[in-house]
Amino acid sequence: MYSFCNDYSEGAHPRILKALIDTNLEQTIGYGEDRYTLEAIELLRKHIGRHDIDIHLLPGGTHTNLTAISAFLRPHEAVIAAETAHILVHETGAIEATGHKVISIQVDDGKLKPSMLQKVLEEHCDEHMVKPRLVYISNSTEVGTIYDREEIEQLSSFCRKNRLLFFMDGARLGSALCCSNSGLKLADLAKWLDAFYIGGTKNGALIGEALIICREDLKEDFRFHMKQKGALLAKGRILGIQFLELFKDDLYFELARHANDMAMLLRDGIRKAGFDSLTDSPSNQQFPILPDSLIASLQEKYMFNIGTRIDPDHSVIRLVTSWATPKEAVQDFIADLKRLQNVN
Amino acid sequence: MYSFCNDYSEGAHPRILKALIDTNLEQTIGYGEDRYTLEAIELLRKHIGRHDIDIHLLPGGTHTNLTAISAFLRPHEAVIAAETAHILVHETGAIEATGHKVISIQVDDGKLKPSMLQKVLEEHCDEHMVKPRLVYISNSTEVGTIYDREEIEQLSSFCRKNRLLFFMDGARLGSALCCSNSGLKLADLAKWLDAFYIGGTKNGALIGEALIICREDLKEDFRFHMKQKGALLAKGRILGIQFLELFKDDLYFELARHANDMAMLLRDGIRKAGFDSLTDSPSNQQFPILPDSLIASLQEKYMFNIGTRIDPDHSVIRLVTSWATPKEAVQDFIADLKRLQNVN
Amino acid sequence: MYSFCNDYSEGAHPRILKALIDTNLEQTIGYGEDRYTLEAIELLRKHIGRHDIDIHLLPGGTHTNLTAISAFLRPHEAVIAAETAHILVHETGAIEATGHKVISIQVDDGKLKPSMLQKVLEEHCDEHMVKPRLVYISNSTEVGTIYDREEIEQLSSFCRKNRLLFFMDGARLGSALCCSNSGLKLADLAKWLDAFYIGGTKNGALIGEALIICREDLKEDFRFHMKQKGALLAKGRILGIQFLELFKDDLYFELARHANDMAMLLRDGIRKAGFDSLTDSPSNQQFPILPDSLIASLQEKYMFNIGTRIDPDHSVIRLVTSWATPKEAVQDFIADLKRLQNVN
Amino acid sequence: MYSFCNDYSEGAHPRILKALIDTNLEQTIGYGEDRYTLEAIELLRKHIGRHDIDIHLLPGGTHTNLTAISAFLRPHEAVIAAETAHILVHETGAIEATGHKVISIQVDDGKLKPSMLQKVLEEHCDEHMVKPRLVYISNSTEVGTIYDREEIEQLSSFCRKNRLLFFMDGARLGSALCCSNSGLKLADLAKWLDAFYIGGTKNGALIGEALIICREDLKEDFRFHMKQKGALLAKGRILGIQFLELFKDDLYFELARHANDMAMLLRDGIRKAGFDSLTDSPSNQQFPILPDSLIASLQEKYMFNIGTRIDPDHSVIRLVTSWATPKEAVQDFIADLKRLQNVN
Repeated sequence: MYSFCNDYSEGAHPRILKALIDTNLEQTIGYGEDRYTLEAIELLRKHIGRHDIDIHLLPGGTHTNLTAISAFLRPHEAVIAAETAHILVHETGAIEATGHKVISIQVDDGKLKPSMLQKVLEEHCDEHMVKPRLVYISNSTEVGTIYDREEIEQLSSFCRKNRLLFFMDGARLGSALCCSNSGLKLADLAKWLDAFYIGGTKNGALIGEALIICREDLKEDFRFHMKQKGALLAKGRILGIQFLELFKDDLYFELARHANDMAMLLRDGIRKAGFDSLTDSPSNQQFPILPDSLIASLQEKYMFNIGTRIDPDHSVIRLVTSWATPKEAVQDFIADLKRLQNVN
Repeated sequence: MYSFCNDYSEGAHPRILKALIDTNLEQTIGYGEDRYTLEAIELLRKHIGRHDIDIHLLPGGTHTNLTAISAFLRPHEAVIAAETAHILVHETGAIEATGHKVISIQVDDGKLKPSMLQKVLEEHCDEHMVKPRLVYISNSTEVGTIYDREEIEQLSSFCRKNRLLFFMDGARLGSALCCSNSGLKLADLAKWLDAFYIGGTKNGALIGEALIICREDLKEDFRFHMKQKGALLAKGRILGIQFLELFKDDLYFELARHANDMAMLLRDGIRKAGFDSLTDSPSNQQFPILPDSLIASLQEKYMFNIGTRIDPDHSVIRLVTSWATPKEAVQDFIADLKRLQNVN
Repeated sequence: MYSFCNDYSEGAHPRILKALIDTNLEQTIGYGEDRYTLEAIELLRKHIGRHDIDIHLLPGGTHTNLTAISAFLRPHEAVIAAETAHILVHETGAIEATGHKVISIQVDDGKLKPSMLQKVLEEHCDEHMVKPRLVYISNSTEVGTIYDREEIEQLSSFCRKNRLLFFMDGARLGSALCCSNSGLKLADLAKWLDAFYIGGTKNGALIGEALIICREDLKEDFRFHMKQKGALLAKGRILGIQFLELFKDDLYFELARHANDMAMLLRDGIRKAGFDSLTDSPSNQQFPILPDSLIASLQEKYMFNIGTRIDPDHSVIRLVTSWATPKEAVQDFIADLKRLQNVN
Repeated sequence: MYSFCNDYSEGAHPRILKALIDTNLEQTIGYGEDRYTLEAIELLRKHIGRHDIDIHLLPGGTHTNLTAISAFLRPHEAVIAAETAHILVHETGAIEATGHKVISIQVDDGKLKPSMLQKVLEEHCDEHMVKPRLVYISNSTEVGTIYDREEIEQLSSFCRKNRLLFFMDGARLGSALCCSNSGLKLADLAKWLDAFYIGGTKNGALIGEALIICREDLKEDFRFHMKQKGALLAKGRILGIQFLELFKDDLYFELARHANDMAMLLRDGIRKAGFDSLTDSPSNQQFPILPDSLIASLQEKYMFNIGTRIDPDHSVIRLVTSWATPKEAVQDFIADLKRLQNVN
C-alpha cells in the first residue's frame, strides 16, 4: 500500500547513504567539530552568500525549534505564532517546557501578517503580560502555503521596527523555495530573518536540520545550548556528511523540485476531477476536500492522513509527496480517484 | 595519526550501514512506530527476559538522561550522583536545565556506595532542602571502573528501602557487561534498576540509546516526554534498524568484547612498561599516569585526551578503545611507548 | 479622587492590623509552623467541615497559582482555561514559566462548560500534543460572573470522569460565595474541587491566600514546592494571624457581602440611568458600557480602569468595590453619573 | 521559653506597624507603583548616593534570589557559591528550579576568595560544561562571618576582569554593615556589586527585601520577572511603607546595631566561660561549641538550633540575636551557661 502520509516515510537519498559508507572508517573528532561538519558549514555559507553567519547542524525539527528559541529569549519573553504553527500544535508544548508562552494567532491560510503582529503588540502593554519577542513562521506552512518575497520582507521590516526577533522554521524550506511563485532564495532569508533553519529530514536526509543564525547578538555560546538540550551528537559527522552531500551540487533543490512536481501532478489531477482544496498549496503538501465515501475507498489502496471534517459528507485529507515519490504512484492515485469517483 | 580519543570516532559498524541500505526505500510510519523499531523492542525484551518492561529508542546519551530524569521526577526532587558523573561534569547542566538539582558526592573510583547515599538522606531532612529521589550511576563509570553484581544489588536494595529511584546511564554498558569480572547480565539490570539505558552510539551505532523502563509507575506517557524534548525522531526507523542489527545475534556484545580486549592489551603493555594508572579499569577506557615528556612525544603520533596533573612531572591520559580499534594500533602504541620511554 | 480601580487599594481591615499588633512581640517558629498558622488551618478545616484536607497559606494569587499548578502537573501536562483567565492574561506567563502550556478556550462570559472541555480532549489525541490535565476556573471570574452550584457540580463530574484535575482560583471567592444566586458553600467546594484557594488579599487582608488541597495524591510534599518557589514566608505567622481574624467569626463573609452590596448599588444605579453592561455580574466587579465622553467626565472625579472599546463612541469600564468602599462614594458616583449624563 | 532560634521570631518593629496603621485607609495604586514605594525607592537611592540604580521591593529572600538570578542569566549560565550558601543549602533547589546549576565551592569560613573563582573558571573550559557567570555571596554569611571592604573590592575586581556578575544576598546585610570591622557602606556596595539586596525581614520588617540593580544591562524589564515569579504584591505599598520607616532616619542601622550588640554580649560571655566557636563571628549569629550535656540543660530554658557534631561529646549551636532581643535574655543565658557549666 503506497503511503502519502509524509515526506519522511523512506530512509535517505542513496547518495547520502553512499557518502556515509565512503567515510565510515575515517576517524574524526566528535560533537560537530569534524572536518565534514566544518566543510558543510562553509558550503552552506557559500550558498547563502554570507560569511558572517553562524551555522549549526542539529538532529531534528522540534529539537531545533526548542534549542534555538530558548537560547534566544529571556524568561519573560514570548513567541508569536499562527494557530496552525507546528510549535503550537505538534510539539507537545516543547517551547512552553523551556518556560516561554506561545501566543496563538487566528489565521486563514497558516500565514502571519504584520497587522496581526501589530494587534498582539498593542494588547501586550505592561509587565502583567508576557513580552512578545520572537515571531515564528513556518515556510512552507503546515497547511502547504508559502510566504513570497514581499511577505517575508514586510514581516521582517515590521519585526525590525518593533524589536521583534524573526525566526523561520524551515522543516520544509526546500519545497517552499522551489515553488514557482516563491521568488525567494537562501540569500534573501539571511537578509530578512534573524535565524532560520534548512530542513534536511523532510528532504532526503536521515536526520538533520541546519540552523542559520544571522543576527549577531544571537550567536554567542550557541553550542552550550545545543549540548544542554542534547542536540550535540557525539557522531556529529553524520550531520555534516549529509549536508555536504545535499549542497555540494544542486541535490537539495533537485529533491525538493521533484517533491513539488509530484504535488503539482496530484493537485492538477484532483482539480480536474472536480474537487476543491482547503488551501491553495503550491508545495509538497496537498489538502483536497473529498467525499467521505471516496476517502474510505482510497484508503484501501493508499495511506494518508485525514484532517478536519468540512461538512457531514466531506473531509480534508492530507497528501504529502517527497523526493522519493514515484510518478507512477501519483498517476495511479489520480486514476483511482477518478475511477472511484464514478463508482461512489 | 591514530586517535584513542573516543569510542565514537568512526561511523557505524558496517553491518549497520548495510541494514540501513537494505531497508532504505521501504516506506514506514514515523516517530518510532515503524515495524523495525517495534521488532527491535521485542528483541531487546527477549534479551532481557522480561515482557513487562517498556523500551524506547532515543538519539543520544545526554538526551536520554535529561528526558528520562525530568520525566521521572517532581519539581522538588533531586538526583544523587558521583562527582565524576557525566551529568555533573559533561552535560552543560542539562538536568538542572529541567529544574532539578544534582547532589554531588565525593568518590574515589567513580562509584557510589550505600553508605554515601545514607549520608545524603540524613542531611536532607526537611522542606528547606531538595528531596533526594533518584540515584544516578554510570556503568562503566567515567573513570573506567565497573559495578559488579553485588554492588548493584546492594545499591538497589538500599534504594528500594529508602524510596529512591535507581537509574543507570549505560552509554558504555556494553563494555561494562563484557568485563571479565562484571558478573552482570541484562536480565539482572532489569531486576535491580528502575530504569537504565543500553548505549548504542559508543558501541557501533551511528546514533541511538535504548532506554529500558522497568518500574511500572515510571512508564506512563513517556512518549510525550520524548516528543517534548525533541527526542522522537521523524525517521525513528533508523534507531530500530540499528538496534535490530546489534541484537539479532551477538553483535552488540562482540563489539564490546573487542573494545575491552584492545583495552586489556593496552593496560597490560602499559603496566609491563612500569606505569601506574589512575584507576584499575577493566573496561574500554584506560587512564595511565605518564611523564609529561613521554606524553608530549606520544602526541606526535597519537591523539588522546590529557586529564588531571598528578605531580609536577606526571599527568593522567585517557585512552579509549572501541569496536573499530585495530590490534595493530594498540601494538604500535605499546611499542612506541616502550621506545620513547627509553629515549625520554 | 475616589478609586474604583481595585479591591486592594486600601491596607487591611482594622481588626487584622489590631491582631498583628496584639501578637507582635510574641516569639514564634518561622515558616508557617507557628501556632497562629496552625490554628488558622484548623479553623478553616472546621469552616469547610473536612479534616482530611491540607491547607497552606501563601502570600499572593499569582504565587499560589504557579506553586500549586507546577506542583500538581508532570512536565507534559497542560492546563485548560478560559481565554479571560487571570493565568492567561495577567500573570506574565507564570504558568508557562514553570514549563506548562495553558490551553485557551473562547468563552462568552468568562466561564468554562463541560462541552468545551470535551472538545479540548478530543483535539488532544496523542503524544505530539500536550496532555490536558488540569481545569482552571476563577470564581468569581475576571468578568464578574460566578459559577453556581450546578455548574460546579457538572464541571467536577466531567473532570472526574476524564481524569482531569479541577482547580479554582479563589482570589475573589468571598464575593462569589456571597452572591445571592451562588448557592455554594465552602464545604461544597472541598467536595467538588481537587484544590482551590480562598483569597485574602482582595477581601481585607494585607496579603494572603489559603490553598485547600482536597485530593489525596496532590498533598505530598507541598511545602517543598512552596519553599522552592519562595512562597514560604519566614514570618509565616502574619498569614496565620490574618486568616484567624478573618474566620474566627463571620468577618470574611461580612466583608465580602459589603463589597457585593456596594456593587449592587452601583449596578442598580447604572441600570436605572439606562446603561448596559458587558456581563451580568452579581459580584464586586461591574462592567458598564458608557459613552466615551461620559467616561472622560467621570475620570475627573473617579479612578477606574477602561476596558475594551465596544463601538466608536462607547467603551467598557471596570468598577470594583471592596470591604472598604463607603456607601457615600457609590452614591456620589451614581449621582455624578446621572448629572453628567444629562450634561454630555 | 526564650528563643535564640532566629531573627524573625517576632513581628515587626512597632514603628513599622504604626506606619501601616497610619496609612491604612488611604487608597493607592497596586503592584508597587504607589507613592510609598516610590518614596522608599527615592530614599534608598539617597542613602546609597546613586540615582542611576534601579530598586525593587520584593517579599522575601528566597524569592528575591530566584527572581533576580533567573532574570540575570541565560539558560547555559551557572552560579558560583560557597558550599554554605543559602541558595545551596536552604532554598530547596530554587535556583536549579529556574534552570541554572549552582557550582558549590568548599570554604572554611563561609566566604569566597578570588583564587577559588579562578579555579572554577579554569575547570569550566568548553560548551560541555555550564558557563560560570554569576558569583553569589551572602553578607553576613550563613556562618556569621562578614566580608570586609578589601575582600569585596578584590572579588569585584576579579569578577569585572572575568565577565562575571557579582551578586550579594543581603538577608542579614544590616548586621554585616554594622559590625565594627566591616568598613563597608551602602554606597560601596553599589560601586562594587552588580546587584544586591538589603534585607528587611531579618531586621525588623514584617516582610520585604530591597533589591538594588546597579549594572545597566541587568535593569531592563525586571518588573516582568517579578510578576512572573509572583513577587509583585497587589498591596505593594506594605513593602514601601516599611522601607520608608526603616530608612527615613537611622532605624534600619539602629536595629542592626542592637542585634550585633546583643551578639557581642553573648560572644564575650561564652568566651569568658571558656568555650570556643565554630567561626569568629562579629555579627548577629554566634556558633559556640558546647558539651552535649550542657546543650541539653540549656534547652530546658532556651530555644536554639543545634548544628554539626564536632566530636563525640561536643556540638555547635546557633544563637541568633535581633532588633527585639532583650539584654536581660542574653544576660540570663550567660548566667545560666555559667551555672550549668559547673553543674554538668
